[in-house]
Amino acid sequence: MLDCIIVGSGPAGISAALTLQANGKSFMMFGSPELSEKISKAEHIHNYPGLSNVTGKDFAAALKAQLAEAEIEVKNEKVAGVYALKEKFSILTQENSAYESKTVILACGVESIKPIDGEESFLGRGVSYCATCDGFLYKGKTIAVVCTTKRLEHEIRYLADLAEKVYLIALYKDVAPMPDNVTVLRKMPKQITGARRVEKLVFAAAPAENLSAELPVDGVFALRECIAPTVLVGGLEAENGHVKIDRNTATNLKGCFAAGDCTGRPYQYAKAVGEGNVAAHAVVEFLK
Amino acid sequence: MLDCIIVGSGPAGISAALTLQANGKSFMMFGSPELSEKISKAEHIHNYPGLSNVTGKDFAAALKAQLAEAEIEVKNEKVAGVYALKEKFSILTQENSAYESKTVILACGVESIKPIDGEESFLGRGVSYCATCDGFLYKGKTIAVVCTTKRLEHEIRYLADLAEKVYLIALYKDVAPMPDNVTVLRKMPKQITGARRVEKLVFAAAPAENLSAELPVDGVFALRECIAPTVLVGGLEAENGHVKIDRNTATNLKGCFAAGDCTGRPYQYAKAVGEGNVAAHAVVEFLK
Repeated sequence: MLDCIIVGSGPAGISAALTLQANGKSFMMFGSPELSEKISKAEHIHNYPGLSNVTGKDFAAALKAQLAEAEIEVKNEKVAGVYALKEKFSILTQENSAYESKTVILACGVESIKPIDGEESFLGRGVSYCATCDGFLYKGKTIAVVCTTKRLEHEIRYLADLAEKVYLIALYKDVAPMPDNVTVLRKMPKQITGARRVEKLVFAAAPAENLSAELPVDGVFALRECIAPTVLVGGLEAENGHVKIDRNTATNLKGCFAAGDCTGRPYQYAKAVGEGNVAAHAVVEFLK
Repeated sequence: MLDCIIVGSGPAGISAALTLQANGKSFMMFGSPELSEKISKAEHIHNYPGLSNVTGKDFAAALKAQLAEAEIEVKNEKVAGVYALKEKFSILTQENSAYESKTVILACGVESIKPIDGEESFLGRGVSYCATCDGFLYKGKTIAVVCTTKRLEHEIRYLADLAEKVYLIALYKDVAPMPDNVTVLRKMPKQITGARRVEKLVFAAAPAENLSAELPVDGVFALRECIAPTVLVGGLEAENGHVKIDRNTATNLKGCFAAGDCTGRPYQYAKAVGEGNVAAHAVVEFLK
């Protein structure tokens, strides 16, 4: 069993990984090959000690080189759920793999786009975060897909292959050409409604000329760079929309630590690497 | 009046300074031209995100260049005391200058050498941390000087000029040739004793052949890279030998924040820059 699983490959996750590696711990870090969209897209970083006025692109390149040198792999799978079992954690990914570890460090960032009203309450009753896990349930049906990042367009296509009709609410730039059964919309929906299951996606006003403000749908997929940690980890305590941690980065779940933007402001690289470092040391201490 | 005064020029202080600068705040940072002995002397830093396997010397050089580029000056004065007044702070230096600020960030590190038993209780009654402030009191007398860093040798010489006899307990390497009235010892003293004022410096065993284990002295100067923050700032709350802060880096004194090694373990660069960043944001928030 692994000593630790790190969820997220931004500055907090990388800082934790480097420190766990230096302490000889076994771990896996889940993330994306680009490490973090927020880094690569940053124009200039003015206040990160040691790197003068660096561009986000250069910072990301430096981090990639550092991970390669330390022989740390970024596992390109999306974590779908973290389950706190007795004295261990079980981690399931959207690629349907399962992993076990003694501890977990959540470094999954924050989504800048707020959840849709009704999203969390309809989760598992028509709302899904995972195309490959739940897509087959919507074969021949009508679905809405709310997507915040171009990186997940392959999941939209996967869903379009299965569903009869797809409303794509694209909250990112440069949407690639989509199959004919996909209607691309640019408005943020207001609410998900229904009796027992999802029935409608509601907008403040009609999202396109020939559509009404209420779209009848069988399901809503929310495809995001970061899934809210409280959705990812059952029983995790939150405070003002962020994971609640103490000064040692411990969450309310024993053996589960959190670092970086997901624990709250300031959303800064220095703060994130600091918490990642503290979390790794807390894991080392916990494993004793 | 300045928005903030930063005490210390290690990674935490520098991180705070860069972030205050980016936020357009007025501030001064007190420290040394070498920034931090701990950085320059570090052989290799393996886990600082963004700088692969960097030497301490190179890290220090990168920080110096970054401060120069951001036009941030390191004020080469030693802070002797921080006084929390009504809605402002007064900062006195050993160079006898006084400064005022709305907030303070303590980033003064930790001294790796523990205080001598009796040191804090005899402070002001024979124990001093400041050669230039209190040296004149010991004209023609016998004193002990406990010094942890070569950087403060000029203060030893200053005291040797005034005192009749000086026992130098040198807790560092490469002690420079000293005046004839200075006896260099290499043992750590155990205790400072006396009735109302300092009378003796006590060792576990005789510190040299022709000396007894109890040296009669009129005063003891403790010259250290870092003065304990609780000595520096009256009324500051400590916990296990470190400044007690909350997750926002706030101490028990309103407007006084702390970051880096002085707030506790892990003593790591990443943790220090993280807290420095959070402290600067807390100052920005406080000033509103």
